[in-house]
Amino acid sequence: MPKRSALAIVVLAAGKGERMRSELPKVLIDLLGAPMIDWVLDAATDLSPERIVVVVGHGAKAVKERLAGRPVRFALQAEQLGTGHAVLCARRALAGFTGTVLVLYGDVPLVRTETLRDFLANHRRRRAAASLLFAEAPDPRGYGRILREEETGRFVGIREERDASPAQRRIREISTGILAVEAKELWSALRGIGRENAQGEYYLTDLPALLLEGGRRVEVSGADFAEVRGVNSPADLAAALSVARERVVAGHLASGVRVLDASSTWIDRDVTIGPGTVIHPFTVIRGGTRIGRDCEIGPFATLRGGAEIGDEACIGNFVEVKKSVLGRGAKAKHLAYLGDATVGEGTNVGCGTITANYDGKRKHRTIIGREVHVGSGTIFVAPVTVGDHAVTGAGAVVLRGRDVGRGETVAGVPARPVRRER
Amino acid sequence: MPKRSALAIVVLAAGKGERMRSELPKVLIDLLGAPMIDWVLDAATDLSPERIVVVVGHGAKAVKERLAGRPVRFALQAEQLGTGHAVLCARRALAGFTGTVLVLYGDVPLVRTETLRDFLANHRRRRAAASLLFAEAPDPRGYGRILREEETGRFVGIREERDASPAQRRIREISTGILAVEAKELWSALRGIGRENAQGEYYLTDLPALLLEGGRRVEVSGADFAEVRGVNSPADLAAALSVARERVVAGHLASGVRVLDASSTWIDRDVTIGPGTVIHPFTVIRGGTRIGRDCEIGPFATLRGGAEIGDEACIGNFVEVKKSVLGRGAKAKHLAYLGDATVGEGTNVGCGTITANYDGKRKHRTIIGREVHVGSGTIFVAPVTVGDHAVTGAGAVVLRGRDVGRGETVAGVPARPVRRER
Amino acid sequence: MPKRSALAIVVLAAGKGERMRSELPKVLIDLLGAPMIDWVLDAATDLSPERIVVVVGHGAKAVKERLAGRPVRFALQAEQLGTGHAVLCARRALAGFTGTVLVLYGDVPLVRTETLRDFLANHRRRRAAASLLFAEAPDPRGYGRILREEETGRFVGIREERDASPAQRRIREISTGILAVEAKELWSALRGIGRENAQGEYYLTDLPALLLEGGRRVEVSGADFAEVRGVNSPADLAAALSVARERVVAGHLASGVRVLDASSTWIDRDVTIGPGTVIHPFTVIRGGTRIGRDCEIGPFATLRGGAEIGDEACIGNFVEVKKSVLGRGAKAKHLAYLGDATVGEGTNVGCGTITANYDGKRKHRTIIGREVHVGSGTIFVAPVTVGDHAVTGAGAVVLRGRDVGRGETVAGVPARPVRRER
Repeated sequence: MPKRSALAIVVLAAGKGERMRSELPKVLIDLLGAPMIDWVLDAATDLSPERIVVVVGHGAKAVKERLAGRPVRFALQAEQLGTGHAVLCARRALAGFTGTVLVLYGDVPLVRTETLRDFLANHRRRRAAASLLFAEAPDPRGYGRILREEETGRFVGIREERDASPAQRRIREISTGILAVEAKELWSALRGIGRENAQGEYYLTDLPALLLEGGRRVEVSGADFAEVRGVNSPADLAAALSVARERVVAGHLASGVRVLDASSTWIDRDVTIGPGTVIHPFTVIRGGTRIGRDCEIGPFATLRGGAEIGDEACIGNFVEVKKSVLGRGAKAKHLAYLGDATVGEGTNVGCGTITANYDGKRKHRTIIGREVHVGSGTIFVAPVTVGDHAVTGAGAVVLRGRDVGRGETVAGVPARPVRRER
Repeated sequence: MPKRSALAIVVLAAGKGERMRSELPKVLIDLLGAPMIDWVLDAATDLSPERIVVVVGHGAKAVKERLAGRPVRFALQAEQLGTGHAVLCARRALAGFTGTVLVLYGDVPLVRTETLRDFLANHRRRRAAASLLFAEAPDPRGYGRILREEETGRFVGIREERDASPAQRRIREISTGILAVEAKELWSALRGIGRENAQGEYYLTDLPALLLEGGRRVEVSGADFAEVRGVNSPADLAAALSVARERVVAGHLASGVRVLDASSTWIDRDVTIGPGTVIHPFTVIRGGTRIGRDCEIGPFATLRGGAEIGDEACIGNFVEVKKSVLGRGAKAKHLAYLGDATVGEGTNVGCGTITANYDGKRKHRTIIGREVHVGSGTIFVAPVTVGDHAVTGAGAVVLRGRDVGRGETVAGVPARPVRRER
Repeated sequence: MPKRSALAIVVLAAGKGERMRSELPKVLIDLLGAPMIDWVLDAATDLSPERIVVVVGHGAKAVKERLAGRPVRFALQAEQLGTGHAVLCARRALAGFTGTVLVLYGDVPLVRTETLRDFLANHRRRRAAASLLFAEAPDPRGYGRILREEETGRFVGIREERDASPAQRRIREISTGILAVEAKELWSALRGIGRENAQGEYYLTDLPALLLEGGRRVEVSGADFAEVRGVNSPADLAAALSVARERVVAGHLASGVRVLDASSTWIDRDVTIGPGTVIHPFTVIRGGTRIGRDCEIGPFATLRGGAEIGDEACIGNFVEVKKSVLGRGAKAKHLAYLGDATVGEGTNVGCGTITANYDGKRKHRTIIGREVHVGSGTIFVAPVTVGDHAVTGAGAVVLRGRDVGRGETVAGVPARPVRRER
């Protein structure tokens, strides 16, 4: 006999998302450094389900590739015949499963694990055949409304916008589509869903009413709208990004990162930052960047492409660091571009320094040693290596392959060794 | 017999706006790339009125010049004797007009056409002699309050702040000053307005009470405060800019532009952007800029002065583009200034590139061909032309008139042709 | 007999603030260009108290040094035994004082003078033995709750979170800790405070209850939560910075500075800006910077380190100015770093100009005269002086000590005099 608590999760991820104006399948659209579906699968995984089934369709190949390595099963929805049909496509992948099926959406990325945990706990405590997650929307237009019995307040169904009376349209409780349903009820109920609607599709929305008609218990639980808002358009994405950013920044603040202005700081979700580091306003930190302790970052700085910044380093105004490694205490305080570079401990990267990493075809690396004094306006044409304690003169153009030796001073265009003045 | 729906619009635009601390007449102060009065006249024009009369005074010449070409009549208010007097100045320009006169303000720039349309529809439906647009102000201080009969809620007059009782001061319904009034009532009523007040001016505010005293029907309609807030100070302007920016960004989001962070994006109202283009945070796009489809813009980018960016182009961190044309797929990804430049298709503008367009007296153009590889830190001293497929070395200073030929490689300070390495 | 209105202020400033992850004593942590305690002492000083006593502990030496010159007395709290103990440490410094003692906190920086003035006026009017300032917290977790008698609403005590019943935890009125207490009641009541609590500390929080038990009158007054929120963590600091920034920007708007976007403008509290100056979005103005009238600043600009910008000057995109003086009408419109520089009237600093002020050991100054035309991409290696009306060519590297004469033109790497073309 299966445990009452057995859980399987179906994530619907077959949509195209034309309104997003992106070539990517919708669920692969980036949300602070990870595709939307990663957010959903992380929340799903934290629930320790027995199985996760991802229903793919548009861009199935790309989605499967992106999720390679995740312990999920895939189900193909070859034709887009609605959410009810999508869940039906997961049936084979759920063969033999007899517990609770939780339906999530690859384009509803911000739902939190603890919200889902509470939702499932309510579902089980109430011994419901199905439970629906709802939210109170500031502007409910376009959403299915939650209908309740007037006296008892009991949930009686979902009314789509197009079928709603003026009074029903004023209802602000809306269906998120997120559904927990006992497997044994699911398949038979899905068979009952028809496609007699404008789109000719099978809607999961109809499931609660069908179960209620069959005398089953269907309950609703509330969640914060910001968490369960779907992403169907650039405006939705902007709203989701705003919520996601706030969540990420709050996490860093809680771990002792001194973010000075949450509203003007953009930190991707997979960034790590050490305690004591100050993040000044107008700072963008993306894609796998790792920053040590007690650094100063910004204002007006971009770090990206897996940059690694050592403890006590300083990245200042109008500086971009891409796919570069900076040692402890290294400084690049103004107007610089460090791309595909390695900068040693204690090195000072002068204002206006550029690593010319791209030769028109490929990217190359610049390796700069420790305690180097890089003069203002130096250009390094990669690939090139600069030894420890070296010095470059202001405006030096260090050509590719013309490595600078340890302790050597170079200057000029192109840069040549010079005798040190005194 | 004139149609009941005949409409004339009077726009009051004679104020000086000393608190704005600008040399411009107040209504010419810029709001996201257009003078405030342009916003008002655009909304007015969309109502298809029979006539538009702009009452000018301070800076009359400048205002008339700015509006040259618009189908409006001007009326001069030589002395600033109040809003009632200002409307009276429009009398000759309205000679023979017998329909509804709508009074708008050149410094209330954000009122929307549909708000005015609803307002006028209410006015006509109620067969009022005059109608007043009111709003609920979060902080009503300084505004005239809407007085209503306690029992019926009927409008009975406007009470100026200085004359208001403590209880009246708590009223948050305020007069926007926007007024619809039947022409046949307007002129006789205006004659009744006195100047027995602190300023010795004729106030349009007195008109509703005068009409009510004469047994005429005066109605009020509500509008959103953010739309009808006047701009009298830098703080008001900042508030108006915030509302205007939100409106403009919402428009781009709706048309498929992927603005990632509405709150840190500054887009002027006359900017066009193609669908699929991603606007990263911390981006300023001003003055007539046109951006194609599927571009990447920002973060930390300024585009202005009628820049034209081709499809699939990329403008990255710390890049300013002014009055320049970039071809399809052109890239300027870091730390560059492109002013008065033309950049051909597929050209890569290296990090640190500068077009030196100003010789201390005049601006000159830099013309760069297709598929050019501009080395990092290149400076072009305009006027200068660079042929297709040319290459400049890192740190090259291309002097004025020293054009670079098709496929040619130049390097050095000043830049000279070099034999290509291999 | 002392006047009833005699006032002494005790500022508690002994805390370490480990959660701030800063090496500074907590009260010295920067809040928009001044240590938090400066904000508190400024508000305190504006109340014209007879004495101000600062209770120091952690980092006592640093705090005393920072406050040198302020007319305050210091009291040392050698061991951190709680707030009650801290006030007791001030007893000697308050010897002979018999009026009202106001207790403030060095880490509650945003309380305004007028709020305190109202609070003290209430305290005196009610002839209370002690008065407590409370606020309504959006999220009261972690704060002591204000308990009131159900029927009368009278204050009856403070309940710490850990001792609160579920119902009490829902109370949103919280104690700010700010206390006014008659000196003659204070010392005897403090003796009654025990340390029978989890931390084994003496809590000032217990004082109101003790006075009430003794039959004394204790009153409460309300304040805005944003003003009285303590700073205990990076998240608190971010919240305080947001409130402080809004307050500073509002002040500049009111004095005629045309800040276009309050939300993306960062101005330190000691910055002065002349009327008519336009501050574009994405601008950071720090540390004692002074800006004249009718300037244009930003977007994407940083001014800091006591920069002085003359009237009608222009600082544009991606420009950083540090500890530099710019004359009237000077311009640096794009991609420049001016550090430790003097720039004369009417001088145009070309795009990409850098002052190389740091030789790896010390900072040096660059002196540029009036009406100089600094070519794009010029690097000045300080110390160096450039005469009035001089010209530098694009990409010039002006070496240290190679001063440029009045009217002279230099170009090249390194820069040498050139005959002017024509």
